[in-house]
Amino acid sequence: MTMANRPQVVVLGAGFGGLTAARALASAPVDITLIDRHNYHLFQPLLYQVATATLSPADIAVPIRSTFRDQKNAKVLLGDVAGIDRTARSVELKDGRHVPYDYLVVATGARHAYFGHDEWEPFAPGLKYIEDATEIRRRILLAFEKAETEDDESARRDLLTFVIVGGGPTGVEMAGSIVELARKTLVRDFRHIDPSSARVLLIEAGPRLLPAFPESLSEFARASLARMGVEVRLGQAVTRCAADGVDMGADRIGARTIIWAAGVEASPAAKWLGVAGDRAGRVPVGERLTPAGEPRIFVVGDTAAAAWTDGRFVPGIAPAAKQMGDYAARAILADIRGKTIQPFRYRHQGNLATIGRKSAIIDFGRLRMKGFLAWCLWGAAHIYFLIGFRNRFIVMTQWLWAYVTMRQGVRLITGSTKLP
Amino acid sequence: MTMANRPQVVVLGAGFGGLTAARALASAPVDITLIDRHNYHLFQPLLYQVATATLSPADIAVPIRSTFRDQKNAKVLLGDVAGIDRTARSVELKDGRHVPYDYLVVATGARHAYFGHDEWEPFAPGLKYIEDATEIRRRILLAFEKAETEDDESARRDLLTFVIVGGGPTGVEMAGSIVELARKTLVRDFRHIDPSSARVLLIEAGPRLLPAFPESLSEFARASLARMGVEVRLGQAVTRCAADGVDMGADRIGARTIIWAAGVEASPAAKWLGVAGDRAGRVPVGERLTPAGEPRIFVVGDTAAAAWTDGRFVPGIAPAAKQMGDYAARAILADIRGKTIQPFRYRHQGNLATIGRKSAIIDFGRLRMKGFLAWCLWGAAHIYFLIGFRNRFIVMTQWLWAYVTMRQGVRLITGSTKLP
Repeated sequence: MTMANRPQVVVLGAGFGGLTAARALASAPVDITLIDRHNYHLFQPLLYQVATATLSPADIAVPIRSTFRDQKNAKVLLGDVAGIDRTARSVELKDGRHVPYDYLVVATGARHAYFGHDEWEPFAPGLKYIEDATEIRRRILLAFEKAETEDDESARRDLLTFVIVGGGPTGVEMAGSIVELARKTLVRDFRHIDPSSARVLLIEAGPRLLPAFPESLSEFARASLARMGVEVRLGQAVTRCAADGVDMGADRIGARTIIWAAGVEASPAAKWLGVAGDRAGRVPVGERLTPAGEPRIFVVGDTAAAAWTDGRFVPGIAPAAKQMGDYAARAILADIRGKTIQPFRYRHQGNLATIGRKSAIIDFGRLRMKGFLAWCLWGAAHIYFLIGFRNRFIVMTQWLWAYVTMRQGVRLITGSTKLP
Repeated sequence: MTMANRPQVVVLGAGFGGLTAARALASAPVDITLIDRHNYHLFQPLLYQVATATLSPADIAVPIRSTFRDQKNAKVLLGDVAGIDRTARSVELKDGRHVPYDYLVVATGARHAYFGHDEWEPFAPGLKYIEDATEIRRRILLAFEKAETEDDESARRDLLTFVIVGGGPTGVEMAGSIVELARKTLVRDFRHIDPSSARVLLIEAGPRLLPAFPESLSEFARASLARMGVEVRLGQAVTRCAADGVDMGADRIGARTIIWAAGVEASPAAKWLGVAGDRAGRVPVGERLTPAGEPRIFVVGDTAAAAWTDGRFVPGIAPAAKQMGDYAARAILADIRGKTIQPFRYRHQGNLATIGRKSAIIDFGRLRMKGFLAWCLWGAAHIYFLIGFRNRFIVMTQWLWAYVTMRQGVRLITGSTKLP
């Protein structure tokens, strides 16, 4: 079904960057192959709400095929990238298939990283995919169930202690959601334990939460979380994660549930391309989002290390990935027409983070907001960006229901009923 | 927190029977312990819609704890029954705990059975729990994905062949839903395969579909399915299930997806109680729903073999389980007061089954209906019985959306991307 002579564009990854690039080429004279390991696009910014039982996985995921149903120049491939052959201009998949390209857009995102301590992963899962979220949901809910029937005081204490490692947006959102789950949603559901006595600790190695925000908003977030009942510990680095808890140097906290939100590492794109990645594994790209010597390979989103301003890099957030994906598409189109476009310039629109069910912080440069109004704006922005009307509508309904009743509806323990 | 001298009622299983029994004792002077392996009540009649990507698991499941939040004489225990000690009057759980009872309600349901061919299970999963449904959904969607990239004609043919074994309500509903998924929802999503060319076979060993219905309605169901594109094969018994397909005697059908809807077997309650089960493993009970010699143990729902009429047993459907659960509660209450109540009498309200998205059959005795109006009634009845307003509302919204757009929204492949 491929038309001869049309340039072959291969897009790796159907996150915000890859999806935007493939969409932006809808009317271009190219054949697009979009490859992803999953059959859905995931709206990662709301993944923590799946992990804390407010939303169902399908509320924040859209089948990629249905998104591209009407885009006739695009086809979707479920596949796992094994490598990129730059000489043959071909992507190798793990099942042995080869997909040749004329232009390549690498948008394979990032994964949580343990800074050389991969042995911590079984005890401190991170939050990047749907399976992570349902696993964390299972562990949190199961900890309350086990505590209900645990006679030993100290073991019960550990079951009701939840440690979140990392004070970025995910850590802050998880801490706020878990403390609300315990103090509002579950509070009257048990007979032997008092769920509101659960300890929720948020541990950050740096001097403040949410370092991408101005200091005043970081402090507002810290104070809000503390008021909600979260123990925020700043300047404390975790030195060990295990089945029985975490250590910060000599300080040990007994906890059966640990959640890792401390850092990410880019997908192995640098390895596939045979280039040296930066410290976070990202591929260094120039002002055209291409690695050195490869004018027809674009690296976008969390996988790219692209210069921004003041020596900083373009941040790993959804709007940045979208801008980069859109740029790659325009650059490909221009190249086909024998033209070039201006270098990529990241337009930073701002940062948002939510703190529980009623508060958020927003930094739009000149406009800074905090509290309830910021939370409303955060909600509107996220619903607006949820792909597909169905999901927008369902998420809005679920949120209203959860907000009004404080009953989180998705409290299902699926899979095993064992804790690690 | 247990008040001394109050009779201890233990209910095993939070399906329709157990839930109804526990609810009906809300104002009784007893302490109730409700034990289930899962932390949610599952609305099994709609499970096939999770397996075919119309509904999310949370749409048809309600956390048991939130259902009993305000019923102060009930506590909920997440646990797996290992046995029942009738002498000590105590339920043993697999983790070693013992739960003593004065009255016991056994409502542990049924599981699909392979008639002595448990080796078929990996290739032909059945549909009883949420994990079954998401696994079947994964296999169905993955078969289309694999077919899209399969070059070998015959292998592609097998990937696009779906065999449902068993022509009861679940088999009929699955066959109708899969053929609609292929012909309506997925039809424009692929580039290399034509999903509407998928073969869907419904195989029934008996002479007709839906034997609980009058013959004319069985024939209506068969003709409707045939018109929708399902190959219905009657009077053919499956003699082998494997990774490459099914055999019916010498007749072999190549298929990578097989779904088992051919029979159920009661939970091991007969073994726990040390009584002889009937052929389907059910516990024979008398007219008070108690096994011989145990006036304080009630067996209800799919686990019980209770006489009905014409030598038949009370059927394994939700309304029957509810009536039995309600009877057990009233019998316990009467016994506490030193009274006895009339024997159990099953009031059969009727049978419903749906055939795809626009048709159903209903047999209410004098009132028999088929077609679209029956489907509307079926939908209303199911939404009405869904526990909890949130779920009712969400399911209605999802159905309307799916019905109007033919886009099933929950098409997520989670877990492994390998077929068996």
